[in-house]
Amino acid sequence: MRFHTRKWVKPEDLNPNGTLFGGRLLEWIDEEAALYTIVQLENSKIVTKYISEINFMASAKKGDIVEMGMEVTKFGRSSISMKCEARNMMTRETILTVDNIIMVNLGKDGKPTPHGKTRVEFVSNRLKDK
Amino acid sequence: MRFHTRKWVKPEDLNPNGTLFGGRLLEWIDEEAALYTIVQLENSKIVTKYISEINFMASAKKGDIVEMGMEVTKFGRSSISMKCEARNMMTRETILTVDNIIMVNLGKDGKPTPHGKTRVEFVSNRLKDK
Amino acid sequence: MRFHTRKWVKPEDLNPNGTLFGGRLLEWIDEEAALYTIVQLENSKIVTKYISEINFMASAKKGDIVEMGMEVTKFGRSSISMKCEARNMMTRETILTVDNIIMVNLGKDGKPTPHGKTRVEFVSNRLKDK
Amino acid sequence: MRFHTRKWVKPEDLNPNGTLFGGRLLEWIDEEAALYTIVQLENSKIVTKYISEINFMASAKKGDIVEMGMEVTKFGRSSISMKCEARNMMTRETILTVDNIIMVNLGKDGKPTPHGKTRVEFVSNRLKDK
Amino acid sequence: MRFHTRKWVKPEDLNPNGTLFGGRLLEWIDEEAALYTIVQLENSKIVTKYISEINFMASAKKGDIVEMGMEVTKFGRSSISMKCEARNMMTRETILTVDNIIMVNLGKDGKPTPHGKTRVEFVSNRLKDK
Amino acid sequence: MRFHTRKWVKPEDLNPNGTLFGGRLLEWIDEEAALYTIVQLENSKIVTKYISEINFMASAKKGDIVEMGMEVTKFGRSSISMKCEARNMMTRETILTVDNIIMVNLGKDGKPTPHGKTRVEFVSNRLKDK
Repeated sequence: MRFHTRKWVKPEDLNPNGTLFGGRLLEWIDEEAALYTIVQLENSKIVTKYISEINFMASAKKGDIVEMGMEVTKFGRSSISMKCEARNMMTRETILTVDNIIMVNLGKDGKPTPHGKTRVEFVSNRLKDK
Repeated sequence: MRFHTRKWVKPEDLNPNGTLFGGRLLEWIDEEAALYTIVQLENSKIVTKYISEINFMASAKKGDIVEMGMEVTKFGRSSISMKCEARNMMTRETILTVDNIIMVNLGKDGKPTPHGKTRVEFVSNRLKDK
Repeated sequence: MRFHTRKWVKPEDLNPNGTLFGGRLLEWIDEEAALYTIVQLENSKIVTKYISEINFMASAKKGDIVEMGMEVTKFGRSSISMKCEARNMMTRETILTVDNIIMVNLGKDGKPTPHGKTRVEFVSNRLKDK
Repeated sequence: MRFHTRKWVKPEDLNPNGTLFGGRLLEWIDEEAALYTIVQLENSKIVTKYISEINFMASAKKGDIVEMGMEVTKFGRSSISMKCEARNMMTRETILTVDNIIMVNLGKDGKPTPHGKTRVEFVSNRLKDK
Repeated sequence: MRFHTRKWVKPEDLNPNGTLFGGRLLEWIDEEAALYTIVQLENSKIVTKYISEINFMASAKKGDIVEMGMEVTKFGRSSISMKCEARNMMTRETILTVDNIIMVNLGKDGKPTPHGKTRVEFVSNRLKDK
Repeated sequence: MRFHTRKWVKPEDLNPNGTLFGGRLLEWIDEEAALYTIVQLENSKIVTKYISEINFMASAKKGDIVEMGMEVTKFGRSSISMKCEARNMMTRETILTVDNIIMVNLGKDGKPTPHGKTRVEFVSNRLKDK
């Protein structure tokens, strides 16, 4: 699993009990899944189709850093399946895991369309890293 | 199922494709589940424990109104289980349904604690409606 | 008066004194008035024209739930008049009341246009409730 | 009337019809009134008590600049009354005026308390301008 | 230097250490520079091209008021150069100064284009003050 | 240089001209520098002290993905110096580079304090990667 995006838990991300608001975490995961898909499929017209069950195993508090990891589990014809993990870089706990997120590739008409990809491509092979 | 909170899909709620950002919708659902739980358990110290699989069936566009419905399915000892539906009031489509959201009641020490509730109570029985 | 939308007072909704920021509450009320109007007039092209005086009677603190109620008081030719109440579901206090909010129905050209409505319609008569 | 704060109308400030969202404008006005009061009373513990009727006379669109003006109309014992105007710097139209906004000065106990001020003081007399 | 926009440091503007988040302050400065440029050049199609070094000299805490000042230092052919200061109205400290911010005037094609301005114009000469 | 956090340019991140708002980008960079520092110094009490000049070389539009890279250039006694790059993953352009960002390590008293670090540590050596 590759971990990219990191989030700093700021006051605006807390629920009234002072821990990370679950809805904010779900928003971060959906955005990371979308980002990862766009980079893999080289198409920004994609939508979330399905998210499998989510277990909240730990939380995070103000000032903690949350790191989001994604791993492609399957390339469908017009979709991509991923698993996801969010972990707390300060406490080293897993906050949640999601076994399956399915994103769908859309054409210009907004309908599912084949993406032609069959394996993970590393950004480093496309962008010249410095 | 009782529908309360309504959201107006504003520009800040859109993904770059111009439809409702999935992460925003997940945030709205988690917040509504929390609200509903707080009102039922008369305790604002609660956390999201589990969300069952989520199927995105339709979307919404700028200017649409999304309505969130909740229904308690089970009162546990220190938890409450609900099902949820989000629907588009303009197109009359169901956007998504979630069969099971489990929220946990916490005590002052932040640990799960019995809530003593066994059935849905209507706000109208607690607040004098005007 | 019908109460629909509920808001959870989160850290981002507070003023520096730790109580609900008045400006945020005004934003919530204007949005609820717009939503209610759109649903009644079945037209999303509407604007706020007038808000009568506002008395802030009580406040809310972090973790409280605020519930917004609306009631149509008059159907004009191209406008709709409503009264509004925001109340704190935790303390059971009325936070504020507004006697008159006038929203105007716009045509495709952005000008006031007759809406043809004369009475409140319940959503349940339009959307098949589940 | 002294105009200080300026706002750039950004996509996140628009309603779904593409004009400045009324609720956002109300939020800006309440914040400006609070700011102006804090500077005058040299106390940041203040609350909005009353806002007189608001007429929306014009709107603003994306990219416009809105300027907020405040003028103290009366110094009460523990309150301050102001009038307010918001105008569009691009079209030179008045967007709205509010004849009376009353803010209350609070003591450490959160109760209204005399502020001891009787006239407008200019910042330039307190802060050494550069 | 002319100080216009004032910001009230709210919970959503804090970093997890409870002081004003540096990134938020940078956002405020860039926005104020853009606003000032738009008003001077009478064109809202402008972009930030360059910001000289930034020294953070003091901070601000929740409830403080931050005031932003701008002063034009040079009118280029298609650009404008400004210096900037942010100061804390409560503690009377300078938070930061920026010696040079360059904004570029764009034409309808999105390319740099001459703006024809050579000196600062006061709003009061354009807008009839009330 | 190591690239971690990725941002999806959403409508709320745009300036009124429809390109990425410069202030938002500055906010992202400051947050990434803070995150990177916290992870390296294993202390979340840090502040931004200095940012060297910033050249905006390219922009990004709605739907683009911006990736932020950081590299430590010097470990001071109570500070850390980094260089930073933001690049557009869709167009493969460098959006901006910053040669020097200095963050300061604070003690419990809020004063600069030695951090005892002398070289970059990889997260993989601290967190067990899965």
